[in-house]
Amino acid sequence: MTGDIDVLVSEVGPRDGLQNTKQFMPTESKRKWISAAAAAGLREIEVCSFVPLKLIPQMADAAEVVAHARTIPGLCVAALAPNFKGAQRAMEAGVYKLTLTISVSKSHSLANVRMTPDEAIAGAKKICEFRDRLPPARRPKIESGLSTVFGCTIEGAVSEDEVVRMAIASVEAGCDEVGLADTTGYANPEQVRRVFRKARAAIGDKLAGAHFHNTRGLGLANVVAALEVGVTTFDSSLGGLGGCPFAPGASGNIVTEDLVFMLESMGLRTGVDLGKLLEIRRILEEGIPGEPLYGYVPLAGVTKGFVPAAGKA
Amino acid sequence: MTGDIDVLVSEVGPRDGLQNTKQFMPTESKRKWISAAAAAGLREIEVCSFVPLKLIPQMADAAEVVAHARTIPGLCVAALAPNFKGAQRAMEAGVYKLTLTISVSKSHSLANVRMTPDEAIAGAKKICEFRDRLPPARRPKIESGLSTVFGCTIEGAVSEDEVVRMAIASVEAGCDEVGLADTTGYANPEQVRRVFRKARAAIGDKLAGAHFHNTRGLGLANVVAALEVGVTTFDSSLGGLGGCPFAPGASGNIVTEDLVFMLESMGLRTGVDLGKLLEIRRILEEGIPGEPLYGYVPLAGVTKGFVPAAGKA
Repeated sequence: MTGDIDVLVSEVGPRDGLQNTKQFMPTESKRKWISAAAAAGLREIEVCSFVPLKLIPQMADAAEVVAHARTIPGLCVAALAPNFKGAQRAMEAGVYKLTLTISVSKSHSLANVRMTPDEAIAGAKKICEFRDRLPPARRPKIESGLSTVFGCTIEGAVSEDEVVRMAIASVEAGCDEVGLADTTGYANPEQVRRVFRKARAAIGDKLAGAHFHNTRGLGLANVVAALEVGVTTFDSSLGGLGGCPFAPGASGNIVTEDLVFMLESMGLRTGVDLGKLLEIRRILEEGIPGEPLYGYVPLAGVTKGFVPAAGKA
Repeated sequence: MTGDIDVLVSEVGPRDGLQNTKQFMPTESKRKWISAAAAAGLREIEVCSFVPLKLIPQMADAAEVVAHARTIPGLCVAALAPNFKGAQRAMEAGVYKLTLTISVSKSHSLANVRMTPDEAIAGAKKICEFRDRLPPARRPKIESGLSTVFGCTIEGAVSEDEVVRMAIASVEAGCDEVGLADTTGYANPEQVRRVFRKARAAIGDKLAGAHFHNTRGLGLANVVAALEVGVTTFDSSLGGLGGCPFAPGASGNIVTEDLVFMLESMGLRTGVDLGKLLEIRRILEEGIPGEPLYGYVPLAGVTKGFVPAAGKA
């Protein structure tokens, strides 16, 4: 994190959002969205996932989208991959950051990637070794994105000891950092504080950001809890697009517009221009017409006399 | 607060919700709702407001509704009044708790009740004096419900010093407690922590609960912040009904169902049976058909393996 922002908002809409829309967003719209998001001040964008096209046809143009994002100065171009093949394709495309999804829930992991969590860790190790053999300039940072950390739609409660074990295993496998994802919208603020504290005790500054869903309306409440225990990176999706196709009912990333409004109102600098951010919605409405969009600030507007954090005394 | 709950959820839907619906909810539906809410474990219900009927015809049956609520054993029957005449009617009806709305923003106060904040405090003093002349058994507890505490749609920012001054003035006027309301949906978690801390420093345990709106999606995030600084009473509305007719765009109390789910998930006992609570929505759908209802938990359901706080180890 550079010193001019307090919190990094990592936009995951082009990946987590689009992989759950019914329509294919035209590549040109994706380019516009990513460019506009970067121009609004978003510094990290998960632009796509490298997944089997049969399963998620929305990501057919992944390499093309990465190529465009790489032309934007200063942008951390991130992508997600569920397995070795996807990771290889992502590295070929030239992503700067690669997130590997590793589910802590065995049932979810098997349903999602047909691997047990331990097999997924072994896979991550291979991917990290592959990465380490690339020329230095072509090595992306690799994040273990632990999913179903706060509960699973199949198993219910997920063991916190298991979360900690998987976080440690991710680091031992060679991952640079570990993020914790509430894939299913099960997290509550008390649990968020407790689990992030435990994970930090286990892996220290290898602990990265939080990925919350708003399935039960607790997304921003969980952000407040995570901020308290020192989390400074949050995934979110413009217009709240997104969810997990393998966790029924678990729709809805937290909304970038609402997140940025909350953080800036709290005096936390995100580097994002809220006015510009709110205009991007139009690109989504044009690119995937009729697709449901969420968020409160886009409807209610900012508060009268709103001052971004950077402008505060 | 009795020892068997950690947080008091004060249902304000029959008042704050219904005074903003287009339709009149039949008295029989109101009775059913209040009885069902009490049966689900809600211990305090703001059942109506005593306001000029010309302005808010939805409250025409206020006295009748209070009479019904008084038959429910153990229920704290609360009502709201904006002025002396309303307060007098509320006391005649036999409410156990009376909330006086006193706006901290001068412009909002003039628009809402045609009084300056200081005039409203003088009015509260008269009301408290009137109350004190009643026989002891007929004296309700009086709360000063400070509104527009966190910002005003007309004035923008509201002075925190002024909030503190009004809180002290309320106590001096004879009010038993002071609640802080984000009438306009302007509050953010950092501000919530700061303002509640300042108010507590000024009036100690006379500081009562928080009344948040979800206008910008920050309602539950603000609850988390308020919990941190020791607030243990929260207003909410079943189905998120409600808002303030004089604060444009400021619709939507926080949703009782989502609030109870969050608190219970966090291990905080509310005394409310979430299953029974979720069933009450039907009474609203029948009583005011087509009126928009909100909330995430009613749509997504509780999490698999959900355990209420009282059942936790």
